[in-house]
Amino acid sequence: MKLQVAMDLLSVEDALKLAGKVAKYVDIIELGTPLIKTEGLSVITAVKEAHPDKLVFADMKTMDAGELEAEIAFEAGADLVTVLGAADDSTIAGAVKAAKLRSKGVVVDLIGVEDKVTRAKEVRALGAKFVEMHAGLDEQAKPGFDLNGLLRAGVEAGVPFSVAGGVKPSTIDAVQQAGADVAVVGAAIYGAADPTQAAKELRSAIMWRPAA
Amino acid sequence: MKLQVAMDLLSVEDALKLAGKVAKYVDIIELGTPLIKTEGLSVITAVKEAHPDKLVFADMKTMDAGELEAEIAFEAGADLVTVLGAADDSTIAGAVKAAKLRSKGVVVDLIGVEDKVTRAKEVRALGAKFVEMHAGLDEQAKPGFDLNGLLRAGVEAGVPFSVAGGVKPSTIDAVQQAGADVAVVGAAIYGAADPTQAAKELRSAIMWRPAA
Repeated sequence: MKLQVAMDLLSVEDALKLAGKVAKYVDIIELGTPLIKTEGLSVITAVKEAHPDKLVFADMKTMDAGELEAEIAFEAGADLVTVLGAADDSTIAGAVKAAKLRSKGVVVDLIGVEDKVTRAKEVRALGAKFVEMHAGLDEQAKPGFDLNGLLRAGVEAGVPFSVAGGVKPSTIDAVQQAGADVAVVGAAIYGAADPTQAAKELRSAIMWRPAA
Repeated sequence: MKLQVAMDLLSVEDALKLAGKVAKYVDIIELGTPLIKTEGLSVITAVKEAHPDKLVFADMKTMDAGELEAEIAFEAGADLVTVLGAADDSTIAGAVKAAKLRSKGVVVDLIGVEDKVTRAKEVRALGAKFVEMHAGLDEQAKPGFDLNGLLRAGVEAGVPFSVAGGVKPSTIDAVQQAGADVAVVGAAIYGAADPTQAAKELRSAIMWRPAA
């Protein structure tokens, strides 16, 4: 399982600082949507130039103009971009077209999609590299939220998937056991007193688990 | 009915140039999602500073972190921001909270929402200033697309609404007759040989229509 750090920060400077602290323990560096909207595509370029050996994941959350939005993010240096599962199939197909031309990938973010299992299968057929079983920050803040619904959906869908929704040291083992391809960790790294140590511990937790 | 120009361009320079050409004929200047993602929030500030007498509409298409995304766009100078109708109610409520604190407004973009009538009523109750009956660029490109479904949904919902989906000189009268509060025009202005003339003609078309 790969480890992805989601950088929900708001400046290129903070993003570069955090990426520098955690890169050696993660596989994928995610630039959050508010970060991209704040700084523009230049933040993608800056992080990719600083970390050419890492996959740079641009959380574009594209809802329309799929081919164009994917193109501009890939050209800026992204390896993976997100399109919303709530988007029209033609939007997802447009982004996939842009990805295939460049040997890059589209991740479909299933945030807000009620039937994640069905949509996961559909978008995989459209060419998504994997789907993100994702509960947003606003959804996580609601009382009673837990990660298990996302894990069950990932297992049931039977397509490559990542899990994002407050993954932390106490839950990353469950994410791996569910068969996720990628665990996405945000606040448990960027909000930690020592982000480097937090990333290192998460890396160890998933490295040394014996095969099921 | 107000006239909104949607600037689906990709640079601050082009946006300022187009806004300069059409501002005097429009009420609302919209910065498209790909433009914001490309340039960052500074494009909002640049356009608002150049046109302080116009409403600046930041098409953020927020899907998560509603309060934060609205806040940063308002602080950059936006008067109106969009949140997706596909977003969780808590995301819309968060953006509305940020808007109310600043006497600004949230527009809920119903792109990709199947039952636009029901969702329009729901998000109006959550505090949306108006809803956008919107077919995206990808949807408009599909064979058989026409604007009438959006107009019917607007009439039926019975809440303040705008219409966006390839509105042009030949259809703007129908938009006004449907009772829309705002007509959103994109390519018919920014793609015109003479954008100033195109905006002027659209303005005349809606100014001089006698009351129904």
